[in-house]
Amino acid sequence: MQKSVWLFSEGRSKDNALLGNKGANLCEMTALDLPVPFGFIISTETCNEFNRLGKQLPDGVMLQVMQAITEIEVQLGKKFGDPLNPLLISVRSGAAVSMPGMMDTILNLGLNDEICAGLSQKTNNPRFAIDTYRRFLQMYGDVTQSLGNEKYESVLAKFKTDHNYTSDLEMRAEDWNEIVESYKKIFQPPEAPHVQLEQSIKAVFSSWNNPRAVRYRSFNNIPDNLGTAVIVQAMVFGNMGKSSGSGVAFTRNPATGEKRFYGEYLMNAAGEDVVAGTRTPQDLEQFNAEHPDLYEKLFVLQEKLELHYREMQDLEFTVEEQKLYLLQTRTGKRTAKASVKIAVDMVNEGLIRERAALKRIEPERMNYFLHPMIDPDAEKNVIAKGLPASPGAVTGQVVFSSEEAETLADKGFKVILVRKETTPEDIHGMKASEGILTSLGGMTSHAAVVARGMGKCGISGCTEITVDYKKKEFRTTDNLVVRKKQLITLDGSSGEVMLGDVKKIQAQSDDNFQTILKWADEYRRLDVRANAETPEDVLKARELGAEGIGLCRTEHMFFEEDRIAVMRAMILAKSEKERQTYLDRLFNFQKADFREIFKIMDGLPVTIRLIDPPLHEFLPQQDADLHYLAKILHQKESELRKKISNLSEANPMLGFRGCRLSIVYPGITQMQVRAILTAAIECKQEGITAKPEIMIPLIATATELKLILATLEETAKEVFKQLHNSIDYQFGTMMEVPRACVQARTIAPNVSFMSFGTNDLTQMTYGFSRDDIGTFLPSYLEKKILPHDPFVTLDQQGVGSLIRTALKQSRSVNKKINFGICGEHGGDPRSIAFFHQTGFDYVSCSPFRIPIAKIAAAQASY
Amino acid sequence: MQKSVWLFSEGRSKDNALLGNKGANLCEMTALDLPVPFGFIISTETCNEFNRLGKQLPDGVMLQVMQAITEIEVQLGKKFGDPLNPLLISVRSGAAVSMPGMMDTILNLGLNDEICAGLSQKTNNPRFAIDTYRRFLQMYGDVTQSLGNEKYESVLAKFKTDHNYTSDLEMRAEDWNEIVESYKKIFQPPEAPHVQLEQSIKAVFSSWNNPRAVRYRSFNNIPDNLGTAVIVQAMVFGNMGKSSGSGVAFTRNPATGEKRFYGEYLMNAAGEDVVAGTRTPQDLEQFNAEHPDLYEKLFVLQEKLELHYREMQDLEFTVEEQKLYLLQTRTGKRTAKASVKIAVDMVNEGLIRERAALKRIEPERMNYFLHPMIDPDAEKNVIAKGLPASPGAVTGQVVFSSEEAETLADKGFKVILVRKETTPEDIHGMKASEGILTSLGGMTSHAAVVARGMGKCGISGCTEITVDYKKKEFRTTDNLVVRKKQLITLDGSSGEVMLGDVKKIQAQSDDNFQTILKWADEYRRLDVRANAETPEDVLKARELGAEGIGLCRTEHMFFEEDRIAVMRAMILAKSEKERQTYLDRLFNFQKADFREIFKIMDGLPVTIRLIDPPLHEFLPQQDADLHYLAKILHQKESELRKKISNLSEANPMLGFRGCRLSIVYPGITQMQVRAILTAAIECKQEGITAKPEIMIPLIATATELKLILATLEETAKEVFKQLHNSIDYQFGTMMEVPRACVQARTIAPNVSFMSFGTNDLTQMTYGFSRDDIGTFLPSYLEKKILPHDPFVTLDQQGVGSLIRTALKQSRSVNKKINFGICGEHGGDPRSIAFFHQTGFDYVSCSPFRIPIAKIAAAQASY
Repeated sequence: MQKSVWLFSEGRSKDNALLGNKGANLCEMTALDLPVPFGFIISTETCNEFNRLGKQLPDGVMLQVMQAITEIEVQLGKKFGDPLNPLLISVRSGAAVSMPGMMDTILNLGLNDEICAGLSQKTNNPRFAIDTYRRFLQMYGDVTQSLGNEKYESVLAKFKTDHNYTSDLEMRAEDWNEIVESYKKIFQPPEAPHVQLEQSIKAVFSSWNNPRAVRYRSFNNIPDNLGTAVIVQAMVFGNMGKSSGSGVAFTRNPATGEKRFYGEYLMNAAGEDVVAGTRTPQDLEQFNAEHPDLYEKLFVLQEKLELHYREMQDLEFTVEEQKLYLLQTRTGKRTAKASVKIAVDMVNEGLIRERAALKRIEPERMNYFLHPMIDPDAEKNVIAKGLPASPGAVTGQVVFSSEEAETLADKGFKVILVRKETTPEDIHGMKASEGILTSLGGMTSHAAVVARGMGKCGISGCTEITVDYKKKEFRTTDNLVVRKKQLITLDGSSGEVMLGDVKKIQAQSDDNFQTILKWADEYRRLDVRANAETPEDVLKARELGAEGIGLCRTEHMFFEEDRIAVMRAMILAKSEKERQTYLDRLFNFQKADFREIFKIMDGLPVTIRLIDPPLHEFLPQQDADLHYLAKILHQKESELRKKISNLSEANPMLGFRGCRLSIVYPGITQMQVRAILTAAIECKQEGITAKPEIMIPLIATATELKLILATLEETAKEVFKQLHNSIDYQFGTMMEVPRACVQARTIAPNVSFMSFGTNDLTQMTYGFSRDDIGTFLPSYLEKKILPHDPFVTLDQQGVGSLIRTALKQSRSVNKKINFGICGEHGGDPRSIAFFHQTGFDYVSCSPFRIPIAKIAAAQASY
Repeated sequence: MQKSVWLFSEGRSKDNALLGNKGANLCEMTALDLPVPFGFIISTETCNEFNRLGKQLPDGVMLQVMQAITEIEVQLGKKFGDPLNPLLISVRSGAAVSMPGMMDTILNLGLNDEICAGLSQKTNNPRFAIDTYRRFLQMYGDVTQSLGNEKYESVLAKFKTDHNYTSDLEMRAEDWNEIVESYKKIFQPPEAPHVQLEQSIKAVFSSWNNPRAVRYRSFNNIPDNLGTAVIVQAMVFGNMGKSSGSGVAFTRNPATGEKRFYGEYLMNAAGEDVVAGTRTPQDLEQFNAEHPDLYEKLFVLQEKLELHYREMQDLEFTVEEQKLYLLQTRTGKRTAKASVKIAVDMVNEGLIRERAALKRIEPERMNYFLHPMIDPDAEKNVIAKGLPASPGAVTGQVVFSSEEAETLADKGFKVILVRKETTPEDIHGMKASEGILTSLGGMTSHAAVVARGMGKCGISGCTEITVDYKKKEFRTTDNLVVRKKQLITLDGSSGEVMLGDVKKIQAQSDDNFQTILKWADEYRRLDVRANAETPEDVLKARELGAEGIGLCRTEHMFFEEDRIAVMRAMILAKSEKERQTYLDRLFNFQKADFREIFKIMDGLPVTIRLIDPPLHEFLPQQDADLHYLAKILHQKESELRKKISNLSEANPMLGFRGCRLSIVYPGITQMQVRAILTAAIECKQEGITAKPEIMIPLIATATELKLILATLEETAKEVFKQLHNSIDYQFGTMMEVPRACVQARTIAPNVSFMSFGTNDLTQMTYGFSRDDIGTFLPSYLEKKILPHDPFVTLDQQGVGSLIRTALKQSRSVNKKINFGICGEHGGDPRSIAFFHQTGFDYVSCSPFRIPIAKIAAAQASY
């Protein structure tokens, strides 16, 4: 006869295909000699056989099951179906893959009226016995008969209403007795415990093929032939009396990381009572004082567990009549600070190696060391939730325009800029603000990208608020109105908007964190550069360890107050000659900028992207600006208005921008290249090592690249001749258009580096506008159409496939090419793992994400 | 010694790599025993050797050249450098690939003062001799010394100004003499003809590596090592006196196709005089009367030529002192009508086979048989030019709104709708108009697509006009103002806008054209379907031979007057329940539409695309509509306005549309599926064979598809149960998002067909918005960055690569899948060739393009 049933003592972790994950883990704990309530597993093979036979258990399975039950009886000293000393069991499903939607569970199986009475007598706790019985009746009816919970819940609800009870705690044993009678009318389970067991096993096996489960597997590409296992385990009770109890414990302090056994317990209580908060649990010190022998056992156990798993454990224990059981042990959750301390300590204790320690750090949580956070214990009044666009926690007065932001900030007030969305014109207002809140836009909207770049707290896509510029207020979905100058607090890590001031924890330097970063530098292969252009940001980037600038967005510099008018005049000039005058003025600005950047990044590469955004982004929207412009340009306002309206586009993201500008207006390219190279040569003359890398955005065809390269080389030659000096520079392209990826073999021979602009590449590969995705993204995430926001974490299947194609084609024609990432994904840990595996040379991200990227890069390297 | 020089009698067509294209063709004509002026070719190999040697001719080349000159002298009975009977020659470049930018040519080489005097004496035509000499001086200086033409032209211009001459015809021999003296001061060529020859050969070989040519090759991926040949050929002159002359002739009538030798000539005239129009050429009948022996020779020659090439020939001949020379023969250009007649006639005459006849048809030109055209002889006043969006020629009164269009049309006037761009709200106005003219938008803008679908004449992207809705006028770049009700004419085949009424030729049925279409049906493999949804268009499609509907855009039906309010109410409904009420009303409309379509397409497949455009496209922009809507919905106007503004998007093309709507509002999908299947079953009950194919647009992930498929199957089950009947239907997806192409293997298992929406796929692959491409497309075409508008002709490298990937992946998991095209490329001949080769099953295009698509499909099949 085929072996269908496995005792916990017969398997190990590795048997998870046959026994399911949960079952295999219980076997592992048993093998470690932990006092786990005993039990057994009916294999996944049996499930498949059951379904092949048309929902019949194969011959002999129940025989094996009943033999295994006998083993439990021996171990526990109880008897299944014996009213005097009843063994109760749980029956659960457990597949080799996680399928959270379909886990069926029946607890307390093995009860009937007679056994319930026996349990009541034995425990001298009638309420416990009858409560346990009614729980069993509900679960059994729900799982084996698919009756649903509602029927049972409504009976209970009605009873409570009739008796004016507000909580289950008010229910007395007699009350539960009445409920049990009503439940039995809904469905009366078989009397015989072994029949209950057989029906339950069949129900769990059948659930593998219920429509919900079939659909779940189809959507998640899980094969139908895996099957589920059934786990049968003895129930133990901490609420059987004064010599029983339950507790939870950590092998180290989960808040601070301190190496000290730590936990709480309650006597005569079930596990759920410890965490429910209805009674106040006591410290384990107290447990030690009152039950020194049990504490000693528990202490030895936790030491053993930590040594075995070489990781801080979170364990649940139950004492049933002086006997200690371990119900669960798992890796303990901990604060960011604790995670770093534990990792470093364990290396020092010789428990783990540096690589393993690094692997345990969650990079995203390292924001704790970089930005202020909301105190987890603080009281907070959350009024809306948006996307966690840029981490940090700030409080300030609400303002609705950049002008207001600057005015109030100048007076010394802390302000929070609230906008529908931001444009490059808002840069100054954003600088003046503590944080930024926008109702529209995704994780890569203008507001989000700029906030991250500045290291400011930011929340974007907060569709739960409606901003009214005229009334100077915003309204939440609960119709709460927040007016100008009211105080709010933003949590950029959670996306929460709170009313008033909320207590914060300031970012703290930490030696352990520095140790982790040092190790990360040793183990990572990927270089980490920064996306930055203002001197402040570039300086911050270098401080935080940037190994170069991977993306310097030249156009950001055009929005400075003294420059924007010149830029606008250049765009709207009537003749080429007039345009050149303004280009010459922009040249001086740009040269000064580049000198500053090269100086700060002395010796490190600086990748400068030529002009990228559509021209209309630079043009004025306000009458005063237009008026001024008309004056200096000697053009009619109406004419300018017409020109500006002609430059507006139906889909600017797919419009006249990027290299298309450089092709149609080569003068802009010439000016920028001249500024870059002149600045670099001037730096060289001052003993500074400038390493400019010139990058062309939005390339779709090799011909675009060749044309611009020709202009660039010609300009370089002129500059070198004019200055009687020269400088090495690299030439490369941004890869952000799908066509460039599938035609990379034609592009690669012309460049020395390729930097993937994964924001735009994601937009075009999916056909998702990052500014508009808010309307359907929530629905898409909820329905699991997307596993993550693809603008935060790279879509490896789709976008990743284009990237792999591009790399493969490029390498086949140009061995020396360098590959980088300068989209927002460059700072995302999951995406960084992909970039490492694919063989990239560097990632580039917002300055404040550099430490996070470095840790992620180190983690990726094994 | 290596052979460097090839007489025309020593080569054939196939030697084009060695002798260049032009040279090889001259050899071929010589081999056919045609009286071509004799000459020789210096090989491309010699060019490479010349450049290797640092611009030196290899030893012995000039010896071979002079020997070849002797051969020419013998053949022509003239002597190179002999003043009494001079042989003049031409020296040209000619590579194996066409490089139009760098063709250097020197004519009349072999002249100096003395020889010029001799020529004058021999021809008794001093003006001829001196004119020939000055032409030589200019060309020689330009080509061998790179002096440029400007220097020479300005001397001549000044002379003419000084003498008050307005044309070269007024120049007398003495005048030319003065010019010659001035020219010699610019540059004096060597006296000796053979030195002139050597310098010229060197100049042509050197031109292979001039920067212009090198760059041209780089951009066109032409290898640098091909080299150019040099062609040296005897000059012959038709202007040597009364026994000389020149003419052009066609072996058949190029206007009508009639089989009759046809041409014109002038005695004592050069070839250019015949076409210049300064003297009126005479018919060849006259030539026959005056020079019967020469005519007889020419007649035999043309018969021989047509038989050899099996194609209508356009030939140039010269008679020099009673001796007939053929200078050129090439395939003759002809009208669309003639091309069809000649092809069919030649099949009947046994000259060519049906396949060859089909191959000679230019599908695009078959619009002649389908739409009225501007009479080529008509006088026209072209005031602006736009994109030829939809063929045809129409005249009407200008109107600037759809309302005006309808009002005037109702009164019986013919109108032309002029807009910046059109939206779905303009459908009625477009229907009422003869033609549509828009200042914005490309070849796949709304106006262009709808005009083609309706078979209306249309011009889009006419940036040369500025439309002013307020003043009700448009202004051209020449500041011409056209006001409401003024008459204009549009030529949709050329994109020309003309003032007033212009004479037209009506489209004519033609038996020959029908024969061609019959042959096309026999030879093509691709099916041809139509993009259509209104009963008129569907009917037209069936008439024109559609083999199904490949794209029925359901949403077009929502814009009908009685429906748009219901659609708007559905979108803006406050509750799901209210939304369902409006969906139920839309159901009735849709069901009626589908019944009509199924009826017309009885027995043929109808592919119906579920709702696609962003919802805000349906929403009202005018106050009156908003007012009405507020009333029926019992909502405040201000609230509605806010809702509508919330639905607007930064990049609607990448926004909340396509399957994203079906996912978030499954009620719309359910309604549409119910309408399709109910209509199909009702048709079935009436004996009509409905073959619905339900198509989901804008799929980016397999999960989207699976979710919608689940909704669809559930709805189908309900409909079948409710109607106690069922119908076969197909389920498929549009492939228009790059991600879907690179992940096709996950999508293919779920569908029975895939239809590529190449408009959107092109937008996303290039990152080009078809509505905004107008700003840079002209520059991109001019600079050869793009060979064609990628929205007209498929980009085979980029977009095509994604399509090939999708087909390959799909076939690997689903052998039975059907592949179609429903983008605008489905009607483009060049693109159709690609679709055939890639193994598509069908293309779908505007009804009026069906005949064109069928011919293109037949041409592609060999």
